[in-house]
Amino acid sequence: MKDSIKVGILGFGTVGTGVVKVIINNRETIRRRLGLPVEIAAIADKDLDRDRGIRIDRKLLTKDPMDLIINPDIDIIVELIGGINQAKGYILEAISRGKHIVTANKALLADHGEEIYRAAEDAGVDLGFEGSVGGGIPVIKALKEGFDANRIESIFGIINGTSNYILTKMTEEGRPFSGVLSEAKEAGYAEADPTLDIEGIDAAHKLSILVNLAFGTPVSVKDIYVEGIGHITPLDIEYAREFGYRIKSLAIAKIADGEIDARVHPTMIPDDYLLAKVNGVYNAVYIVGDAAGETMLYGKGAGELPTGSAVVSDIIDIGRNIISGSPCRVPVTSYKSENRKALRVKRIEEISSIYYIRFMAMDSPGVLSNISGVLGKNNISISRVSQKGRKEGGSVPVVMMSHRANEKDIRTALTEIDGMPYISEKSLVIRVEGEEI
Amino acid sequence: MKDSIKVGILGFGTVGTGVVKVIINNRETIRRRLGLPVEIAAIADKDLDRDRGIRIDRKLLTKDPMDLIINPDIDIIVELIGGINQAKGYILEAISRGKHIVTANKALLADHGEEIYRAAEDAGVDLGFEGSVGGGIPVIKALKEGFDANRIESIFGIINGTSNYILTKMTEEGRPFSGVLSEAKEAGYAEADPTLDIEGIDAAHKLSILVNLAFGTPVSVKDIYVEGIGHITPLDIEYAREFGYRIKSLAIAKIADGEIDARVHPTMIPDDYLLAKVNGVYNAVYIVGDAAGETMLYGKGAGELPTGSAVVSDIIDIGRNIISGSPCRVPVTSYKSENRKALRVKRIEEISSIYYIRFMAMDSPGVLSNISGVLGKNNISISRVSQKGRKEGGSVPVVMMSHRANEKDIRTALTEIDGMPYISEKSLVIRVEGEEI
Repeated sequence: MKDSIKVGILGFGTVGTGVVKVIINNRETIRRRLGLPVEIAAIADKDLDRDRGIRIDRKLLTKDPMDLIINPDIDIIVELIGGINQAKGYILEAISRGKHIVTANKALLADHGEEIYRAAEDAGVDLGFEGSVGGGIPVIKALKEGFDANRIESIFGIINGTSNYILTKMTEEGRPFSGVLSEAKEAGYAEADPTLDIEGIDAAHKLSILVNLAFGTPVSVKDIYVEGIGHITPLDIEYAREFGYRIKSLAIAKIADGEIDARVHPTMIPDDYLLAKVNGVYNAVYIVGDAAGETMLYGKGAGELPTGSAVVSDIIDIGRNIISGSPCRVPVTSYKSENRKALRVKRIEEISSIYYIRFMAMDSPGVLSNISGVLGKNNISISRVSQKGRKEGGSVPVVMMSHRANEKDIRTALTEIDGMPYISEKSLVIRVEGEEI
Repeated sequence: MKDSIKVGILGFGTVGTGVVKVIINNRETIRRRLGLPVEIAAIADKDLDRDRGIRIDRKLLTKDPMDLIINPDIDIIVELIGGINQAKGYILEAISRGKHIVTANKALLADHGEEIYRAAEDAGVDLGFEGSVGGGIPVIKALKEGFDANRIESIFGIINGTSNYILTKMTEEGRPFSGVLSEAKEAGYAEADPTLDIEGIDAAHKLSILVNLAFGTPVSVKDIYVEGIGHITPLDIEYAREFGYRIKSLAIAKIADGEIDARVHPTMIPDDYLLAKVNGVYNAVYIVGDAAGETMLYGKGAGELPTGSAVVSDIIDIGRNIISGSPCRVPVTSYKSENRKALRVKRIEEISSIYYIRFMAMDSPGVLSNISGVLGKNNISISRVSQKGRKEGGSVPVVMMSHRANEKDIRTALTEIDGMPYISEKSLVIRVEGEEI
């Protein structure tokens, strides 16, 4: 009879510290629910000396992850070192030795998930990754279990806190991207190199994990269209407001006719939409099921303790399987591996959408008519036009909202329009979602 | 080796029909996730003839629930007949015969949950009740598993769609309660006898279930303070708006110093709060954990298919336990029964809050000073006063917002004030929640 669930933690950084704090602070609550305590058997990190603000028996610390992986007492290896190659190596090694795995490594799962999922399944061990998407929000469990009676139709939302923080500040204060980004770095809301966050890559990693669970198909990050937020200006935010919209960086995945539409880009959504009110570093994920309808999960998408909450819930989940002798009770990717099928992911040129387009055009007669003409011959009809400024001989914004149009047609039209002599800069396009998502 | 998970459904009404539709429509998706199909072995209902809009083999239908309960082929009995005594009898009988149970019967669990939970635990069978709270929102699973690494600090939200629909309409259209209620009945958003919904009793049933899971303590519905929405007027909604608030009927539970504060009442919340934007028949539940922080789950709180989604997710959950031989893998009330402890529930007189108070007073000199005097001597300090109308010799509303005060003091003060000769009707109080919840 086991007297505890023993975990070995690889990586004692921000999330590792959060996990240790949750296990220690909530030891009694966890025991009351699980029936056994969760015990930290060992922690591996390069830095054994830094003060993490918690008291830990130094005997638990080691510099060598292999000490944990070969330790026969340890039930679960918790990988929180991040990065790709090293982390993958340790996880596969631990799986081969029959350890269950918990990880929050979204980049690793996005790039090498299939290999790791398969290895865990073949070895009959559990692999939990609740911490990889949405911080403290139990979105992985919701997709794998809560909505498992549904055919999922779409999943979309705000899954990168840094981008949402920056867009929120730009919206509230009318300031440009660059200034807000600098301030976000200083305040610790953006990393020194914020590329993964502001270019939408981090959100694409997470979306690939969610799509896999929602639709039962592997999706490569390379197949997810990605567009960052750096080109959004206070002017666009102001026009969005005037038209009744907010601009948010959304990750969006839909399924139709057996094909996947998966993308990350700045998106205009109606400002009475609940998602439009999700501000700052908060995350929110909509899941639309054929039976449950439209549901949303909202909470802190990152941080030591929220992500710690998710990681420890995985530990408890696996602990329950250990206690009741039911490993792999829920398939690692929600669908039984023999029941998954590779679905085609649409290229961005194949989607249709409503589009906001901002042209920068010379303020002279005939310009609007010429632009409209090119749009019209490309099957793009316009629902709304706004041209407010007047600047004799200078460039002014001309803003249009389209009816539903094909991305391919939009691109063709803009290539022609942007080549016109009275267009002063590359036209800016923001996709609009609302009633249909 | 089992070739399917067989369910017997008691009750072929709205939810029963939804469950059957979900099982039939999503048969393949469910099989791909669970590994086996879910099969409807039999359905019991008094009415075998009504057209439910689905094709069902008539051989599956019976009028006698006991046909299902004694059927050795059936793994799971799904109780959807509602009501108390009959439903309880069938559930206990089925448990005694080793059947697993799924129910959406919130009134039954609120009144007799302890007896039923204990019976299931003693018999080693599973009991799922995701459909009892929040319709298609997987809030039960979130509390039992998603946030199980947390000490839950509070849980609150909109868990009665009828009340929220009526308050939303009153807010949007400035119309009084009675007219909106009549219209809601006609539109099917309120029952012919709406008492349980508009008096807050249905929400109290649900809150008692949630409190049990969140805090590991049984709570009797009788100990939950309940106040309906019938006394809220368009005038109060207008004052709330002026002060920056919305009025919502909230179910609220908090824990502090080992004591529970659990109540259902109209509540003023800041209008920039996400919960203030949850309108119509939608439900939303906030769960605040010490590690996860503030999270919210939002979705359709009722209806054939959303509740069907929840019930079928319970069937799949239990199906997984059957397949992997792990019954009772998660304790029925989230905490192992030996680790639950009865906590005291505060009486409403013991709470403190911020209060909105509307007096109807004669418009004459000295009235405001006399009201303020009584409040002051009862330790109630006022942050804001609004007295807009003037009506020589008549009654006008005098509205105040208090700082944090004790409910007991409020009640004492209002008894004295309402006895004053220039007060024309009973003063109206609405509790305010916001920063602190």
